[in-house]
Amino acid sequence: MFVRTVAWVSTLPRTIQQMLEHPPAVGSRLQVAGHVKSIRKFKNIGFLDLSDGSTYKTLPIVFRHPDQVLAQYDLKVGQSLEISGDLAESKGVQSFEVTFDPADDSHHLKIIGNVQDSYPIQKKETSLQFLRSIPILRHRTSTLASVLRLRSFLEHELNVFFAEHSFTKVTPPMITSSDCEGGGEQFTIEPLNPKEVVKDGMAVKHEFFGKPAYLTVSTQLHLEVLAPSLNRVWTLTPCFRAEDSNTNRHLSEFWMLEAEISYISQLSQLTRFTEVMIRHLTSQLSNNREDVLNSRYNKADRELIEVRWNSILAENDWPVITYDEAINLINQVKLKGRSKGRLAWGDSISTEDEKWLAGDHFHSPVFITDYPKSQKPFYMPHSKNYNISAPTVACFDLIFPFIGELIGGSLREDNYEVLVAEMNRRNMDLVEMDWYLSTRLNGSVPHGGFGMGLERLMLYLSGLENVRDVVTFPRAPETCDC
Amino acid sequence: MFVRTVAWVSTLPRTIQQMLEHPPAVGSRLQVAGHVKSIRKFKNIGFLDLSDGSTYKTLPIVFRHPDQVLAQYDLKVGQSLEISGDLAESKGVQSFEVTFDPADDSHHLKIIGNVQDSYPIQKKETSLQFLRSIPILRHRTSTLASVLRLRSFLEHELNVFFAEHSFTKVTPPMITSSDCEGGGEQFTIEPLNPKEVVKDGMAVKHEFFGKPAYLTVSTQLHLEVLAPSLNRVWTLTPCFRAEDSNTNRHLSEFWMLEAEISYISQLSQLTRFTEVMIRHLTSQLSNNREDVLNSRYNKADRELIEVRWNSILAENDWPVITYDEAINLINQVKLKGRSKGRLAWGDSISTEDEKWLAGDHFHSPVFITDYPKSQKPFYMPHSKNYNISAPTVACFDLIFPFIGELIGGSLREDNYEVLVAEMNRRNMDLVEMDWYLSTRLNGSVPHGGFGMGLERLMLYLSGLENVRDVVTFPRAPETCDC
Repeated sequence: MFVRTVAWVSTLPRTIQQMLEHPPAVGSRLQVAGHVKSIRKFKNIGFLDLSDGSTYKTLPIVFRHPDQVLAQYDLKVGQSLEISGDLAESKGVQSFEVTFDPADDSHHLKIIGNVQDSYPIQKKETSLQFLRSIPILRHRTSTLASVLRLRSFLEHELNVFFAEHSFTKVTPPMITSSDCEGGGEQFTIEPLNPKEVVKDGMAVKHEFFGKPAYLTVSTQLHLEVLAPSLNRVWTLTPCFRAEDSNTNRHLSEFWMLEAEISYISQLSQLTRFTEVMIRHLTSQLSNNREDVLNSRYNKADRELIEVRWNSILAENDWPVITYDEAINLINQVKLKGRSKGRLAWGDSISTEDEKWLAGDHFHSPVFITDYPKSQKPFYMPHSKNYNISAPTVACFDLIFPFIGELIGGSLREDNYEVLVAEMNRRNMDLVEMDWYLSTRLNGSVPHGGFGMGLERLMLYLSGLENVRDVVTFPRAPETCDC
Repeated sequence: MFVRTVAWVSTLPRTIQQMLEHPPAVGSRLQVAGHVKSIRKFKNIGFLDLSDGSTYKTLPIVFRHPDQVLAQYDLKVGQSLEISGDLAESKGVQSFEVTFDPADDSHHLKIIGNVQDSYPIQKKETSLQFLRSIPILRHRTSTLASVLRLRSFLEHELNVFFAEHSFTKVTPPMITSSDCEGGGEQFTIEPLNPKEVVKDGMAVKHEFFGKPAYLTVSTQLHLEVLAPSLNRVWTLTPCFRAEDSNTNRHLSEFWMLEAEISYISQLSQLTRFTEVMIRHLTSQLSNNREDVLNSRYNKADRELIEVRWNSILAENDWPVITYDEAINLINQVKLKGRSKGRLAWGDSISTEDEKWLAGDHFHSPVFITDYPKSQKPFYMPHSKNYNISAPTVACFDLIFPFIGELIGGSLREDNYEVLVAEMNRRNMDLVEMDWYLSTRLNGSVPHGGFGMGLERLMLYLSGLENVRDVVTFPRAPETCDC
């Protein structure tokens, strides 16, 4: 790890989080700013809960003469205020509060941003579904702000984790001319105002990049080019799929963590590494839950999360089974005594069956390895125990309870001739893929990697159910509000 | 900062970097793998330099009977090898070397990936221009691999810096329906295989998102929506511009760091914060130069970098001048005694003049603030010392020697009526922008932010001159190789 020195001081104001962590002395004058989360009025005293977004915790403001104060300032939930008052000890949730006295000329209260009467986020519980209808304001709720803090926390911990494991973070391109992996579900891009060129006497659109260009569906092939130069690379980038399905699991734009590791030739090195990665993240999250999780989660939600986190952190290594074993378990345990719905070798394992395996059978994340070759892409090498009558490849899916597939990965075929033969078998365009193939002719190294949808992990860790709730502004068919 | 515990062990192999940092005992058996960077042969002894990409440093392999070994294995630069031999002390650049003895049956050497005879990266110096012509292999050079390590280092340090300053990292969308900021230079996107719908009896393309969609040119407006919920937000994402210019400064896809900070109302808070950020990064880089910079940089390059880093880390705060002062300096100092080319108030400051101000006049990064309103976007509020006959806005550009503008930022107008008036004055579509404007009606808070092109910073810190050398796979007109 790197040497660090501490440094220059910025002049940003103190946040409520910083004040709560290092409270000023009782009796001192405090100036705070934030949004009104709630107003409570009693006969002789009133309370405001103020949030500035730096933490889910609110700062209590206490004032006498509540009728006078509320009328004079026309205070409402959602307004942003600037208040100066005195710091006092508190017996409430926080250890201190700010008292505002309208009769004290040295105190002040100012509305710095008013709200419309229709301001939709009130103290009463609002459903996540309703919040999806107000994309511009929904992150003012402590639940969804907290989800964004969780995301930031996970990203920070991923940076630390990969640096500790000697990875270089790289930024492969989002725009690609390679369309072999998209299965026709890419987006194409072109300039809003394309130039025209004359071709055979006709004015035709000029291709900006000199060829068709797409938004990436996976950065894997580019990572495979970079990995031999840097040994281990990872990235966390947007990926794009023009899939025309509106579900609570799919987005047109999502964030993928992808990693490629050189000089490995055992599938178990990959499964172990991903297990260590998820255990690390969850353990860090568990250690820092008070800073990351918000107060909204009620007891049932908290217990749900606890169960989920504990299943990750269980002492035993996560089970690793082959596709063949998975099929057998589904047929012999899940479908015991039933003749309908049984799986034949070569069938896909449905998300429902995945959830059964992880959630009901193992009560744990579980790796399924060595899937049939026909279900997987061209770049996966044969399994160690290759059987020509039931051909499988050296790959794995990591299956989570409630979620199904969280991570998919494999070793990558590093032999040029084998790769070309397989691509020919699949009628792929070798010229188009020459750039990728050329790595196998110039100091090829054994390697493997994996990809994980960050939003899926967030769903599992947060207990939320709709992927649209764990991104800032979801993109999906008919959904691109701003 | 967060509590951390140390955790589960992965089973990845040891990298050369890890071996060099924690050398095994002299005499112990070592198995290593990597690419051959160079081969040197003397009468009785031969040397290979092996790199596995984990560091720019190479591991020396020493072998007797060089003629026999080279002939038997047909060793070439670029091949990837697996070697096991004995660790010995070394008097070379590294403190140890691996001795390989072909006569010792317990030693082995295996070519795990061969090269074509045309393998283009040889020991002799290759120009950056030539390397741009081999995009798939160029990162095998220690120079360009080092640039990617620099990028990863900077990103890591940015994560640490922003976490320490209470920012939440967010991921605003890359796909947007908002086109007001692009000046017509956006890319549009649509599915590769769009559905057709019948409209007025005609088959027309169905719009996937229900409206036209673009790739983002800046995430600022979305960050402004999120900032009041989280206090301080930052992001580092791709941005896209369909600008039809092929220069060494422009890319169609580049990475932008953008940040928005709530509850600030002084421009100096923003300039100070960006100064602290760049000083922090540079200081960390300077502390860790041995791990980040490679050995390729010759003495002149190293001195150039030293001068650049020192100008950032100079003891005095960086100069802050207004646009008016900048114009006067250019006219009175740079153009002293000349009548041609003088700037009138309202003229743009050219990149050349920016480089003169920072590089020749101040020998320092310099902030230029309060530009004419006509040069800047609609969302910037009036300057503190607003002069109706020479109207300026509360913004800044951070200008660097050799580079010109590195960062641009401003306070943001938070008053609804003022913002609407300005948008009307510019004939903007208020309906289209309703989502953005609505933040000013629902608890608006004073705020400001900035954006920095990561590649520009990398050029300045690395001493490289072409932006295509600091990204993995550059995207530009006619350039989208893979």
